[in-house]
Amino acid sequence: MEPQKKLINSVEGCVDEALCGLVRASGGLSLLEGHRVVLRSDLEALRGKVALLSGGGSGHEPAHGGYVGAGMLSAAVAGGVFASPPPASILAAIMSLHTAGASGVLLIVKNYTGDRLNFGLAAEQARNLGVAVDMVVVAEDCAFDRPGKAGRRGLCGTVFIHKLAGALAEEGSSLDHIVARLTEVLKGVGSLGVSLSPCSVPGSLPSFDLSPGDMELGLGIHGEPGIKRSKVTSADEVVKTMIDHMTNPDSQSCLPLKSGDNVVVCVNNLGALSCLEMAIVTRAAITCLESRGVAVARVMSGSFMTSLEMVGVSLTLMRADEDTLRLFDAKTSAPAWPNLSSVHVSGRSYVVAPPTMDTQPQDDTHTEGSLSPVMHKALESVCSTLLEKQEELNSLDRAAGDGDCGNTHAQAARAIQEWLRGHVVPGCPGKLLSVLAGLVQEKMGGSSGAVAASHVAEGRSNAAAWASAVHAGTQAMRRYGGADPGDRTMLDALFPAVDELMKLTTAPPGGQMVILQAAVQKAASGAEATRDLTARAGRASYIAASGSPCPTRAPWPSPPSVEWNVKEKDLRRDGENKT
Amino acid sequence: MEPQKKLINSVEGCVDEALCGLVRASGGLSLLEGHRVVLRSDLEALRGKVALLSGGGSGHEPAHGGYVGAGMLSAAVAGGVFASPPPASILAAIMSLHTAGASGVLLIVKNYTGDRLNFGLAAEQARNLGVAVDMVVVAEDCAFDRPGKAGRRGLCGTVFIHKLAGALAEEGSSLDHIVARLTEVLKGVGSLGVSLSPCSVPGSLPSFDLSPGDMELGLGIHGEPGIKRSKVTSADEVVKTMIDHMTNPDSQSCLPLKSGDNVVVCVNNLGALSCLEMAIVTRAAITCLESRGVAVARVMSGSFMTSLEMVGVSLTLMRADEDTLRLFDAKTSAPAWPNLSSVHVSGRSYVVAPPTMDTQPQDDTHTEGSLSPVMHKALESVCSTLLEKQEELNSLDRAAGDGDCGNTHAQAARAIQEWLRGHVVPGCPGKLLSVLAGLVQEKMGGSSGAVAASHVAEGRSNAAAWASAVHAGTQAMRRYGGADPGDRTMLDALFPAVDELMKLTTAPPGGQMVILQAAVQKAASGAEATRDLTARAGRASYIAASGSPCPTRAPWPSPPSVEWNVKEKDLRRDGENKT
Repeated sequence: MEPQKKLINSVEGCVDEALCGLVRASGGLSLLEGHRVVLRSDLEALRGKVALLSGGGSGHEPAHGGYVGAGMLSAAVAGGVFASPPPASILAAIMSLHTAGASGVLLIVKNYTGDRLNFGLAAEQARNLGVAVDMVVVAEDCAFDRPGKAGRRGLCGTVFIHKLAGALAEEGSSLDHIVARLTEVLKGVGSLGVSLSPCSVPGSLPSFDLSPGDMELGLGIHGEPGIKRSKVTSADEVVKTMIDHMTNPDSQSCLPLKSGDNVVVCVNNLGALSCLEMAIVTRAAITCLESRGVAVARVMSGSFMTSLEMVGVSLTLMRADEDTLRLFDAKTSAPAWPNLSSVHVSGRSYVVAPPTMDTQPQDDTHTEGSLSPVMHKALESVCSTLLEKQEELNSLDRAAGDGDCGNTHAQAARAIQEWLRGHVVPGCPGKLLSVLAGLVQEKMGGSSGAVAASHVAEGRSNAAAWASAVHAGTQAMRRYGGADPGDRTMLDALFPAVDELMKLTTAPPGGQMVILQAAVQKAASGAEATRDLTARAGRASYIAASGSPCPTRAPWPSPPSVEWNVKEKDLRRDGENKT
Repeated sequence: MEPQKKLINSVEGCVDEALCGLVRASGGLSLLEGHRVVLRSDLEALRGKVALLSGGGSGHEPAHGGYVGAGMLSAAVAGGVFASPPPASILAAIMSLHTAGASGVLLIVKNYTGDRLNFGLAAEQARNLGVAVDMVVVAEDCAFDRPGKAGRRGLCGTVFIHKLAGALAEEGSSLDHIVARLTEVLKGVGSLGVSLSPCSVPGSLPSFDLSPGDMELGLGIHGEPGIKRSKVTSADEVVKTMIDHMTNPDSQSCLPLKSGDNVVVCVNNLGALSCLEMAIVTRAAITCLESRGVAVARVMSGSFMTSLEMVGVSLTLMRADEDTLRLFDAKTSAPAWPNLSSVHVSGRSYVVAPPTMDTQPQDDTHTEGSLSPVMHKALESVCSTLLEKQEELNSLDRAAGDGDCGNTHAQAARAIQEWLRGHVVPGCPGKLLSVLAGLVQEKMGGSSGAVAASHVAEGRSNAAAWASAVHAGTQAMRRYGGADPGDRTMLDALFPAVDELMKLTTAPPGGQMVILQAAVQKAASGAEATRDLTARAGRASYIAASGSPCPTRAPWPSPPSVEWNVKEKDLRRDGENKT
């Protein structure tokens, strides 16, 4: 088994290069020569104020270097990946802050033995050199009901402490006052993590195994074991389990939280959770807390104290009075601090009504017509076919896109089936198409809906009106989609069919069926002909048109025989509903 | 094959819940009822100004909802995951901005067929309703040398356009002026992505396969194929390949870039790259550009336009004059905009010298003593044993921690070996220990170094001095580590040994060997006795002491026989060098 391939230059150099990347990108930061220490560039601003120093192992980026700046840390010391920084570097950082004129130096340390030892030794050495040094140990992990002698671990709550300490120091508080205030705040801070995957230190194998679909509750930020393994359930349930555990009064590590309390919430990405999931977890945390009568004052959601590329999330809650919120809201230039609003989360009205518009007929009172039974049957057949072919469409789509074409069409099919159960099929085709357009737009999104929607609200229902509507829709697609016939898009099927259909505007009533049949033929042969065309527009064009196509993906699936579903796929190839 | 398990509640609800999470957490945002539209809460601020609307498929969070705020977008419309939003919602958003009193509405659209169609149709409908609407299409992908008719894709450069347009609108520019300015800027914007893994739409299988260790260059943000597959190389090489490709004058998609140009750089996490790697790539991008004489004006690094949980990164470069930088630097309240400095990156001095300190003897002129050959031999043996046992130590450590104990010790061993090759072993043991402490601290970090470092600089070298130094170091470890003998830490080995060693302070010269042998015995039996103790301090305590230990990880490895390396592991169990 090989260690995971990472985007680094070398195992040995990864920490130094990451620090360099952070500092170079951030105008307010400097590096201390010969040490893994990030400092404020404007050290002169510390004169007469308390300086704040934190740090610890690397692999938790943006912690702690990203929190260096006016209003947060004065400096941060980094160790190797998941390894405590050496006392000599901690001491060098302390002495730099002291030399800059700081009235004292506060060390903010996560409760791990290595950090306590190394920061402790450096503090002792600095005191011997005449520096006023104190230390606050953050130990806010809520995982263990009966924590051992090592105490609770220090997790993402440390970031809250950086922020509050930074605001206090900025406004000129004394070292003693800051220590007292943080000690008080820390009683109301608790964190808990949940992990869906391990992470691996560069050059090493993953520190533990976790089967896909399993999650571990209460994991440490270096992959130390948690308290429980279980199947991944819904985001809401996972969050409820976490908050239940964090606030369980039977646990010695619990965060006491009662109805009426105000909290600041940090939803922390442990490394590789998607931003989509992060936002869902954020919503779940807010609603779960509110359901207990807890008022959410502020929320920050993002990557604040990571464990390399671990897939997972931690929650940190901090009870907050108005003064704590004032410190939390204070400005900082630290590059990893997010752009937060200072509006209370709970109690805020966040949904606004759309302006009234009369662009679509909304009346739901349709009358059946002579064609209603036929149209009902046709729709039923289209829907059941789409549902039947869902996986096949997905699989074909995977060769060219994101592999969810079947799912997308199934959503529309189910919506139409449901609508058919509760409504009569209007005899007026314009009305029917308008309804279908609305359903397809709403449930499936995208341009297939757009075509249908554009010109059907005319109220006419004769053959010529149908032909004109399809013509106008196809022209709109050409205009906005930027494709022409011959570009291997769905227009190659639609345009010949529409040319045929337009004959309906002049054809005698008896000749309409022939024209319709011919239009279907033209559509089918137009679609078939795209096999030999080069895609020049739409998403399919990104596959084979330019340079070397990707060797492991066929540019175009070749089914054994040309079935309808394949043609359907060809048809939607390029007006498809993807962004 | 099952779709990947995600932290969501349902496939159907994931987009709406994510939008809700974003809006609830951000005091400046609102949701438009009945639509997937995020709006500024302070719409009244738009009166008389141009409003900006963007959007597209979901799965690219924080795009685009996270960019809504004063100084950026006025609203953003979301489609399903990787699906374009329906025209009806785009229209509703436009009409909301119009109703709020905006003088015009600019649509900022990524160049995908679905988005162009849907935004185009909504724009046309809005114009029919009397709204001044215009559209800017962002198409800055540098992947394809000969882009097809669909043109270049719109990628993360869209975020730059949001920012500049937002600043222009905020200062009252007209719709025409903004469109003209953005069109000009877009000529100097280019993006390229590289992916190390696919991503999967919720409920679907991954859209393509990519073998571990492989990467694909030029991938689209929905997993559309790129231009080349190859093995993952070093971060520096990957970045160089990307920038070479982006600026290749033979490509019709190239970004023309020459020595002397100023650029803004966005290093964009496609979803699941660790923050450590992101910082390394950021450094690589800056140095690569500077090596071509290009001046880097600003850098933003983070998750700005993601592809769900894709492991990868994209680079966006924007040529920027002073006026562009002024717009880029302008304030915004958009929650996803990072806390950036407005200091030029290139040309800034970012390394400061540490204060001079005389806490460690730095002289490198040692004289050999009678014990030098013995100590040389002992050190050689310790180092080669550590290197030999590297994998075994890693494997044991995986049962309890992050699995890199062997690597960490190997680093120290190699450093000591290298030092031995270039230096004489000082006859004064205090000097030798001081050197070793420095090497261990520097190359390995952590508390093992701390013990050695604390009390060796006394210059004395007799047996009593040795004993006192070890005693003082052990006491310091007890004080800062918070552990006592009996807590199953390395102190259980050290304390009995130190008690024995302290007899050296009074023993006659002839009795020293007996005491030393007894001390070794005490250390070994102390370590052995920890088998039956419960860990109460340090990292080992997190494993078995509290509640249910994790079932798939043994709380303590039980080797068939008690070999030295196992005892060594026991010894370091709790003063180990991890944070």
